[in-house]
Amino acid sequence: MYSIGIDIGGSKIAAGLLNEEKNLILKRSAPFPGTDDPECSIAVMNHLIDALLTEGGVRIQDVAGIGLAVPGSIDYEKNLVVHAYNLGYHSFPLVARIQAHCPDTQVFIENDANAAALAEYYCGAFRGYATGLLITLGTGVGGGLVLNHRLFVGGKKNGFEFGHITLVYGGELCTCGHRGCIEAYCSATALIRDARRAAAAHPESRIAQAAAGDESKIDAKLVFDCAKAGDEQAVRLYEAYTGYLGAAVSSAIAVLDPEIIAIGGGVSNAGNFLLDPVRAYAKEYAFFKQHAKIVLADMRNDAGVVGAGLLHLQRG
Amino acid sequence: MYSIGIDIGGSKIAAGLLNEEKNLILKRSAPFPGTDDPECSIAVMNHLIDALLTEGGVRIQDVAGIGLAVPGSIDYEKNLVVHAYNLGYHSFPLVARIQAHCPDTQVFIENDANAAALAEYYCGAFRGYATGLLITLGTGVGGGLVLNHRLFVGGKKNGFEFGHITLVYGGELCTCGHRGCIEAYCSATALIRDARRAAAAHPESRIAQAAAGDESKIDAKLVFDCAKAGDEQAVRLYEAYTGYLGAAVSSAIAVLDPEIIAIGGGVSNAGNFLLDPVRAYAKEYAFFKQHAKIVLADMRNDAGVVGAGLLHLQRG
Repeated sequence: MYSIGIDIGGSKIAAGLLNEEKNLILKRSAPFPGTDDPECSIAVMNHLIDALLTEGGVRIQDVAGIGLAVPGSIDYEKNLVVHAYNLGYHSFPLVARIQAHCPDTQVFIENDANAAALAEYYCGAFRGYATGLLITLGTGVGGGLVLNHRLFVGGKKNGFEFGHITLVYGGELCTCGHRGCIEAYCSATALIRDARRAAAAHPESRIAQAAAGDESKIDAKLVFDCAKAGDEQAVRLYEAYTGYLGAAVSSAIAVLDPEIIAIGGGVSNAGNFLLDPVRAYAKEYAFFKQHAKIVLADMRNDAGVVGAGLLHLQRG
Repeated sequence: MYSIGIDIGGSKIAAGLLNEEKNLILKRSAPFPGTDDPECSIAVMNHLIDALLTEGGVRIQDVAGIGLAVPGSIDYEKNLVVHAYNLGYHSFPLVARIQAHCPDTQVFIENDANAAALAEYYCGAFRGYATGLLITLGTGVGGGLVLNHRLFVGGKKNGFEFGHITLVYGGELCTCGHRGCIEAYCSATALIRDARRAAAAHPESRIAQAAAGDESKIDAKLVFDCAKAGDEQAVRLYEAYTGYLGAAVSSAIAVLDPEIIAIGGGVSNAGNFLLDPVRAYAKEYAFFKQHAKIVLADMRNDAGVVGAGLLHLQRG
């Protein structure tokens, strides 16, 4: 049997066909068609599904499931997207819409960070482990947890929001309205915020010089590159950021104690330059000394599509 | 079948006999015999077991299990107490020692906060729920989590240390060596530390007046009593403390999303005067709006004994 995964993002919709061996054998994508009418995005998804089937030479009867990964909160009982702000979905019956187009196969939905964790479990860094935590460092901080071989979506099925643990009580305002969340310190957005402040306060710094007055040129890669080059402000930002992330990882170890923690998302492109100080922090401060391996995520850009395509293995 | 639970604390060892209906039908206790030789405490426990059997008129063959609750970390594979500092147990084969005295029944071991959570699950606040979090506010901050009807002891079986999530990055030094843990802000010890500082800085405050120069008179109850009476310093301490606890509870909601959260331990004697602001905090700031009920723990002083006595239901 085959399966289909669709990863719905604010800029593009990526879809893929997986074979029985969980390999992604065909990929297609299309721009996300704006946020005015969610029905337009349904038309795009249905078109992508049809394209995968036609081009892959696969009949819908041979598809074990279609999975949808969404950057937002899910009502698992009602199969609704509660809120996906970047998509303009609010209480949107996404599953029912796709199911109407594909009545002969099961349609599943999941938060995108959870889907990515499932991809790591079946095909990536979590293979061979029962319990793994994926932390994605991007615009926000996402988290996906596989607990004893099952995706964890909360005791009340509200979800799993690792990025909204309080890390700095009373600290920076978070997108969620609370202050001091992990997301407000460990996201790419947070690093960029702090780097812009540093550049404004220190026009002589390498970061400020590289940006040359254009704030939009300041991103995580620039900060890490300048830190590698020894720029004082960049090193300060790098040490602060990896400290926050080290504490976040240590908090995860204290309450989840996973066998493995994988770090993904755009910021993780820095590789071991990012991970080494995080590992050192956890080694020194995590409550449990025989704690999780800390690695880079394996699945990278395909994580959402692959994880969505494998949802049927957990729910079918 | 009956069962026996033993709760081993630094000042006393409490033991109880439970009947088939999970009722505690007989209790006995003895002082913990110092920390020099752990074998002395074994003799006390064996004596308590024998006393319960004799006085209860129960044969050991009718005991389904003996459970031991310990304030420390457990190696579940090797059945050792890794460290229980207050007891002077280090890599101590507690189970084997009790098993040698009672070869005809199974002996189980658990961290005391976990045992207390199990007591809430079978007999207390968590009845009827699949997933509940117990937070105990005492000398430290303990946590016990029942997840989908099972006691959660970590993905690597290191345990569950809710009190060692970072709440105030870089903040007060914690007993674990890290800074800013929930324990360093939400334990009774932390509240007392802050109250002593306030009393020293504000000798006119009601807390300082009540202590009359004797720091040891300052405890959680005094702070709450003075806050109720409107003392400015005490109100400030109360608001700060309930804010920290509100954020800790909100962090738990974000990653565990339990159906119910019970607050126990000495500080919780303040009842709804403690819980009301915590509930209000979570209502305003917790990521999930349809989140856990927040209640007082039910089992109070018997939690450890009852939970220990019911371990056989999860492991037998």
